[in-house]
Amino acid sequence: MRCVVLCAVLLGGVCAGQDAWREQGLLHLAQSPHARMHPVPVRAARLEAGFWKARQDVTIERSLPTLLELLEQHGVVDNFRRLARADRQPPRRGPLYTDSDLYKWMEAAAWSLQVRPDAKLEAKLDELTDIILAAQEPSGYLNTWFVDERAPLRWQQQTSGHELYCLGHLLQAGIAYYRSTGKRKLLDGGIRFVEYLLRDFGPAPKQPLLTGHPELELALAELYRTSGDRRYLDLAAYLFSGVERERLKLRERDLVYLFSGKPFPERTQLEGHAVRALYASTGAADYVLETGDAAFRRTVLRLWEDLAFRKVYVTGGAGARAAGETFGDAYELPNQQAYSESCAAIAGMIFSQRMLHLTGEARYAELMERALYNGICSGMSSSGTLYCYRNPLAAPASDRIRNPWYDTTCCPPNLQRTFTALGAYFFSTSREGIWVHFYDNAALEWKLESGTPLRLKVKTGMPWHGETEIAVEPGKAEEFTVFLRIPGWSLSTKAEVNGEGISNVKPGEYLAIRRRWRAGDRVRIVFDLTPRRVFANPRVSEDYGKAALQRGPIVYCLEKHDNPDVDVFEVALDGGAPLETEAATGALAGAVLLKTQGLAYEGPLGRRPLYEFQPAVPARRVPLVFVPYFAFHDRGPADFTVWLPCRGCGF
Amino acid sequence: MRCVVLCAVLLGGVCAGQDAWREQGLLHLAQSPHARMHPVPVRAARLEAGFWKARQDVTIERSLPTLLELLEQHGVVDNFRRLARADRQPPRRGPLYTDSDLYKWMEAAAWSLQVRPDAKLEAKLDELTDIILAAQEPSGYLNTWFVDERAPLRWQQQTSGHELYCLGHLLQAGIAYYRSTGKRKLLDGGIRFVEYLLRDFGPAPKQPLLTGHPELELALAELYRTSGDRRYLDLAAYLFSGVERERLKLRERDLVYLFSGKPFPERTQLEGHAVRALYASTGAADYVLETGDAAFRRTVLRLWEDLAFRKVYVTGGAGARAAGETFGDAYELPNQQAYSESCAAIAGMIFSQRMLHLTGEARYAELMERALYNGICSGMSSSGTLYCYRNPLAAPASDRIRNPWYDTTCCPPNLQRTFTALGAYFFSTSREGIWVHFYDNAALEWKLESGTPLRLKVKTGMPWHGETEIAVEPGKAEEFTVFLRIPGWSLSTKAEVNGEGISNVKPGEYLAIRRRWRAGDRVRIVFDLTPRRVFANPRVSEDYGKAALQRGPIVYCLEKHDNPDVDVFEVALDGGAPLETEAATGALAGAVLLKTQGLAYEGPLGRRPLYEFQPAVPARRVPLVFVPYFAFHDRGPADFTVWLPCRGCGF
Repeated sequence: MRCVVLCAVLLGGVCAGQDAWREQGLLHLAQSPHARMHPVPVRAARLEAGFWKARQDVTIERSLPTLLELLEQHGVVDNFRRLARADRQPPRRGPLYTDSDLYKWMEAAAWSLQVRPDAKLEAKLDELTDIILAAQEPSGYLNTWFVDERAPLRWQQQTSGHELYCLGHLLQAGIAYYRSTGKRKLLDGGIRFVEYLLRDFGPAPKQPLLTGHPELELALAELYRTSGDRRYLDLAAYLFSGVERERLKLRERDLVYLFSGKPFPERTQLEGHAVRALYASTGAADYVLETGDAAFRRTVLRLWEDLAFRKVYVTGGAGARAAGETFGDAYELPNQQAYSESCAAIAGMIFSQRMLHLTGEARYAELMERALYNGICSGMSSSGTLYCYRNPLAAPASDRIRNPWYDTTCCPPNLQRTFTALGAYFFSTSREGIWVHFYDNAALEWKLESGTPLRLKVKTGMPWHGETEIAVEPGKAEEFTVFLRIPGWSLSTKAEVNGEGISNVKPGEYLAIRRRWRAGDRVRIVFDLTPRRVFANPRVSEDYGKAALQRGPIVYCLEKHDNPDVDVFEVALDGGAPLETEAATGALAGAVLLKTQGLAYEGPLGRRPLYEFQPAVPARRVPLVFVPYFAFHDRGPADFTVWLPCRGCGF
Repeated sequence: MRCVVLCAVLLGGVCAGQDAWREQGLLHLAQSPHARMHPVPVRAARLEAGFWKARQDVTIERSLPTLLELLEQHGVVDNFRRLARADRQPPRRGPLYTDSDLYKWMEAAAWSLQVRPDAKLEAKLDELTDIILAAQEPSGYLNTWFVDERAPLRWQQQTSGHELYCLGHLLQAGIAYYRSTGKRKLLDGGIRFVEYLLRDFGPAPKQPLLTGHPELELALAELYRTSGDRRYLDLAAYLFSGVERERLKLRERDLVYLFSGKPFPERTQLEGHAVRALYASTGAADYVLETGDAAFRRTVLRLWEDLAFRKVYVTGGAGARAAGETFGDAYELPNQQAYSESCAAIAGMIFSQRMLHLTGEARYAELMERALYNGICSGMSSSGTLYCYRNPLAAPASDRIRNPWYDTTCCPPNLQRTFTALGAYFFSTSREGIWVHFYDNAALEWKLESGTPLRLKVKTGMPWHGETEIAVEPGKAEEFTVFLRIPGWSLSTKAEVNGEGISNVKPGEYLAIRRRWRAGDRVRIVFDLTPRRVFANPRVSEDYGKAALQRGPIVYCLEKHDNPDVDVFEVALDGGAPLETEAATGALAGAVLLKTQGLAYEGPLGRRPLYEFQPAVPARRVPLVFVPYFAFHDRGPADFTVWLPCRGCGF
C-alpha cells in the first residue's frame, strides 16, 4: 500500500508518481473540477461471495475465455494478424466494426486483472496488444476494415464507417490495461491514432470529423483524465460542436439517427439509435465533469430526465424500437416488441453514473440499480456463455433471445467489462467522506480523500434479504460522512450505528451519517424488501391497467417454466391477493421467488373475438410463481412476461 | 335495358352478346362455380343523397381531377409520353412503380363513368389509353421504368421491380373501362402483355416469374372471368405455386416479406408486407371461387381468421408496423405507432368481399363494414384533396398524417376506385334472391338470377339513424329471398314486412326473408344504434383496460378540436357515465357526435414518475365530445385517440 500513502499527499493535484496508474478510479475523476464525488479503483472494491460475485466469477472463468475463442473462430483476431502478413491471408471477416469487439473484450479482461491477477491472461493481453499494434500504420491509423483496396474509403463513410468508434474502444481498452498493470503499450498505440487525428482533422482547413457512432467522446475525456493533456478533451469538444454538418453533407435524419453532427446543447430529447444517443450523452456528461459548461449541463440533465421519465423500461432497458435500434416516442415502451439492447441498458447506466458523480443525487444511482439488477443482468446467462442482444419484457418460447454468438458482437464484451469492473461502481469518495451506492457482500480497501486509509466491509443478504452490516474501519479515528444510499423501493428502512438507531431515513436519498468514525464501528441497515406491485405512468399505453412485481431492486417475471398449467399471456394479477416469497431451488437456488394468486380467463382468449361490447374478465383462481426478470429464458426458452393485467388494483 | 333481357336468358352460361360488358359485376362471378353469390354491376347500384354519396361525389368532382393534375405535375403521365419520343424527354421521374398509380386512377375514373357518365372524362381516358399504349413494345412488354439503359434489368429484379404489379393494375383498369364503356383498347393492351408472359414465362424451361408485390393474381382471375380464357387463371395458379424459389434464389425472408414465392397452401398466417399479403390472399380467394381448390380454401379461411381474430384494428385497418409496412405478431396492434396503411384496409376489405361471395357468411361483410366506415373512410379527407397513407388510432397534432401528395401514390387512387365503385359493394344476387350487405340511401336497378327485373330502393338515415325502408319492386310477383345483413352491433333490431313484424332477428347474420314479393312491398328495419363501449381481446396488450366508443358501424375518437381543455392522452372514460348523442354542426354537420363524462388526472402525467408503487387514478370529472374516427385531422391536425382508459368498466 505504499502508493496509497505516496499519492495521498498529492491528492487534489496530479498524482504523477511511478505508480499513478494504481490510483486511478474506474473513472479517474480525482482532478475533475466539477465532480461531486470520485469513483474508486477497481482493485479497491472487491466483491465477496454473493449475488454479483457469482456473476463476476462466471464472467472471468467462463465468459471471457469462451468469447475469446469465438472471436478467434470468427476471424476477429485474424483480421489484425493478416495485416502483418505479406499475403494478407486469411481474408478479412465480419462486419466493419469487429475491431471494437476485441478491444472491448480486452477492456473487460484488463479490469478482471485488478479483481483476480492472472499471469496467463495478462500474457494473452500482451500478445493481443502486439498483434493489434503490428497492424497500426506508421501514421498512427489503425483499422482492419479500411485497408488495402478499401483504404481510399477512409473517412469517406463517417456516418457508417465506425472508425472513431473502434478507436474509442481501443483507448478504453488501453486505459483499462494501463490502470490494471501500468503497461502503456496499448494505450500509447491508441494515443498515436489520436495524435494522427489531431494533426490532420478538425475545423477547416483541416479535414472534418464525425463520430458516426458516438463513443470516442467519452474515451477522449478519460484519456484527458489519465494523461492530463487538454488537447484530447478539446477534440471531444470539437466532436460535440456540430460544426461539420455542411462539409460532411449530413442530412437531418443523420443528425437524429447518429445523435452526432449537430451542436450538442441543441439536443432536446433522446432519439435515434439508442446506444449512440446514450454514449453521446455519457460523453457530454464527462465533458461537464471537466468543464462545467452550463449549456452542456442543462442538456445532459434534460436528456437524462427524458430517459428516466419517458423512455426507460422498468428493467432499466432503453431503446423501444427494433427498426434502427432506436428510441421510440415519449412513453412508447412496448413489451414484447421491446428492443432494449443490452448495450443500451449499459449505456444508460454509465450515463447515470456520470450524472451521479456530477450531482451526488440518489436518483441517478437508482436508475443505475434498476438497469444493473434487471436489464443488464439479464444480458448474460448464468452459464456465462449465452448473451442477449435484445431484452424484451415479454416473449414467447419461440423467440430465441439468448445466443452464444452474434455477428455484431457488441453486447457480450460490453456486459463483460461491466461485470469485471463492477465492484468499483459500488463506492465513491468525496471530500466529506465515502459513498455506498449499492449493497452486496464486498470489501473496500481504499482511503478517504484526507489520505486516511479506509476499509469498509459490507455483509448483506442483498438483493434477497435486507439485513446489511457495514464495518467502517478508518486507519485512524476521524470525522467524516458515510453516505448510504437508501433505495426508493425501501419504503421503511431501519438504520443504526453501533446499535443506536437513526431516525428520518428517507427512501430515494443518501443517508449521510457524519460522525467521528473509528475502527470497529458498525452500521446496520435493514432494507425493506416487501414485494410490491409496480405501476407505470398511464401514458405508457401498453402497461395501462397492469402491474409488474418488484422486490428490492429485482423486477420479476412470470415464466412458463414455473407455471406449466398457466398461459402467462392470459392471466391477471389479483390486486387483493398477498404477494409471498419463497426460496428458489434448482437452477435458481439462492434467489427469492414471489408467489401469489392470479386470475385466469375461462377458455383460451384466442377463441374470443378481437372486439366485443363486454370486456373479458378473468375469474378462475390460479397460483402464480414469479422469477427474477434477469433469469428469463435462462433455463431454456419459455413464454414469459413482466407486466400483467391487474384486477382490483385501483385502476 | 335490352341487354339485361338479352343476357338474362344466358345466365349460367357465358353472356357473350355484343353488350356483355354491361352485365359484368364489379367482380364478374356470374360463371364462377364456387361463388355463393354474385356482385352486381357498378351501374346497377346507384348511391343516393347520403353518407356515401357525399364521399363518392367529392371523389368524382374533386379527388379525381386534382389527383390527375398531381400525377401530371409529378411526371407520371410524361413517363409514358417520353417513350413515344425520339429524344426520350423529359427524363423519367418518380419511383419505379408510378405506372400503377396512373392505372389505378384510370380504374377509379372508369368506374365513375358507370355512376356518372362524363364524355370529357371518357375522352381523357381514351387519350391516356393512347399515351400508354404508345409506350407498349411490339412484344407486349409495357413498363416505363425498365426501358433504355434499364432494359437489361427486366425480370432481373422480380422481388422489387413491380413489373407484374403494374401489369395487374393495367389489367384492372382495362377491365373496369371495358365494363363501363365496352371499349377494349386498354384491356387488349394488358392482354398483349399477358400473352407475352405466357409465351416466355412459366415453369422451366421457360423463364421463372414471381409477383414480388402480389396483385397480378387477382387481376388474372378477373381477366379469366371477363374473357373466359383459362390460360389466365392457370398463370395465376403458377404464380401461387411457389415452384421458382430456387431459380429465383429467393431467401426465406423474401417468402415472408413478399408473401410470394412459396406454395400458397403452405401459408399459415398473415406476415410480411401487409398489402402484399392481403392482395395475395384476395387473389387466392378468387382462385377458390373459380376452382374450389380445397387446400387453397382452407388456407384463405385460416388467413382471414388470422386477420379478423388477431391482426385487424377496430377501425378495420391492418399492418401494425411502419418498418417494412408489415403485419406485426398476433395481437400486436399498437395505436399511435400503427401503420395501418389505407391500401391495407382496402386490401383486407376486398379479401373479405371475396370470402363473403364464397361463403355467404355475414362475418365477412361485418369486417368489410368495419374497414369501409372507419379505416378506409379516414383515408380521404372530406375535401377530397388530402389522403392518409398511415391511419393510426392515436396521434399528436405534430404528426402530419393527411397530405395532398405522396411520392408513392398507391393509396389515393386506391381510395378513389373504392369510392367510385362503392354502390356495387352493397348488393349481390344468388339463385335464391337478392342480398343487401350495407345500408345507405341507394337504388338498385338490376334483376334476379331468374331474369326477373328487380328494383330495390333503400331509404335510410344510416349510418347516423337506424330507420330504414327498403322498397322491393320485382318486375313481376315472384317467390325469392331478400337477405338483409343484420350487423353484429345492432343488438336489438326491429324488422317488418308491409307492417308485419319479423321475429328472431339475429345480429351478425343475414336475415333471410323468403316470400312471394310483389311491387309495392316494403321492408322496414330499425337498426339499434345505441352507442357502446368496445373492448379489445385482453391479448391486445395496448388496449387492455381501455375502451373505444362505437355507434352503429362508426368508431369514434376523442380529438382536441372538440375538447380544447382536455389532454386527450391523459383522460379516462367513466364506465358509469351515460353515452349521449348530439347532432354535429359546422364542418361535421350531418354526423352524430357522442358525449360523455370523462375522468381526468390531477396535474399533467408528465410530472409523475414513470414507475410508482401506486397507480395514478383519474378523478376530476370532465365533459368529453367524440367525433367519428374517419374525421380525425379532417379539420386540421390535432391530438386524437380512439382507445381510452376505462375506469369502472369491469376490468
